[in-house]
Amino acid sequence: MLDLESIRKKVRNLLDKERFAHSEAVEKVAAHLAEKWNVSVDKARAAALLHDVSRCMTPEKMLVRARELGIKAGRLEEMEPKLLHAELSSLIARDEFGVTDKDVLSAIEKHTIGSPGMSVLDKIVYLADHIEPGRNFSGVEKVRKLAEEDLERAIVASTSAMIAAIIAKGMPVHPGTVETRNYYLLGDSR
Amino acid sequence: MLDLESIRKKVRNLLDKERFAHSEAVEKVAAHLAEKWNVSVDKARAAALLHDVSRCMTPEKMLVRARELGIKAGRLEEMEPKLLHAELSSLIARDEFGVTDKDVLSAIEKHTIGSPGMSVLDKIVYLADHIEPGRNFSGVEKVRKLAEEDLERAIVASTSAMIAAIIAKGMPVHPGTVETRNYYLLGDSR
Repeated sequence: MLDLESIRKKVRNLLDKERFAHSEAVEKVAAHLAEKWNVSVDKARAAALLHDVSRCMTPEKMLVRARELGIKAGRLEEMEPKLLHAELSSLIARDEFGVTDKDVLSAIEKHTIGSPGMSVLDKIVYLADHIEPGRNFSGVEKVRKLAEEDLERAIVASTSAMIAAIIAKGMPVHPGTVETRNYYLLGDSR
Repeated sequence: MLDLESIRKKVRNLLDKERFAHSEAVEKVAAHLAEKWNVSVDKARAAALLHDVSRCMTPEKMLVRARELGIKAGRLEEMEPKLLHAELSSLIARDEFGVTDKDVLSAIEKHTIGSPGMSVLDKIVYLADHIEPGRNFSGVEKVRKLAEEDLERAIVASTSAMIAAIIAKGMPVHPGTVETRNYYLLGDSR
């Protein structure tokens, strides 16, 4: 795996200015949460820097790359190819950044939809993406507070806010987001 | 299949007073929508009368009957056995009421979660259950109006209202409800 500064430099070239600033903001929050929740700060930083590395591709390119890499695109993903960016970023981290650490690849892959049974690192990167200082959705303060107290309750609050906002906008909700919320709501993992 | 009045009599014995009144209210709305949308009024009435026929069982009994009948209960259903009542009611309609009409059995089975690719009768019973005059959720007037204009837009409005209400209550959302909403939102069936 490249060192963090090489990753940063290479990621900067693949993202526009705003997306790169977001990625560094996620990195800072993820590093803080990793220290707080006692997992590798370096892994958290690497996953955060790389989490959106495919995000500035055009939708067409995302679909082509996804097909090349064997990522399954369902109807939702075909209509909204950016839904592929988490899995795509994970495979780019592996193939173009030489990341072999499974924890880091998993956290990148799960950062958008989440998943039942996430690791602490997965949860941290997922939440850091939602609560970095640039984020401003209704309920974000509650999620920020919960991320310091209980990562799973923070995920329930975050997915709840996301689903409510998507419904209000009249957009499709990813069933995976609902499954993630149900899993942590029902306390399967405790 | 028993005639409608025999079904009514037998259903009355299996439900409490309120649930039976609800079923007859659904029957009236379903009959109206069936006429409006040009499907069998008799099938709509039968499905509506029978849609909640298992709804007054205890949760324990629902789980036992579901197991006997080979209905798969997932974690959500085990925590909330009433989620089984649609499938259970459909099988009771078949086994204890002699209903063999597949359209009627399908409409009973799909009335809670819905499903992609519903028939017109399925949609009517689904909606009638949500908009009968006793229902009073935020947005119900919009769903009532849409049911006269466009059944699929009515289903999107109805599932949207339901998901928002469930999220607000901090309860788990059934992924099937989200899939139903996505399907009609994205216009798969047009």
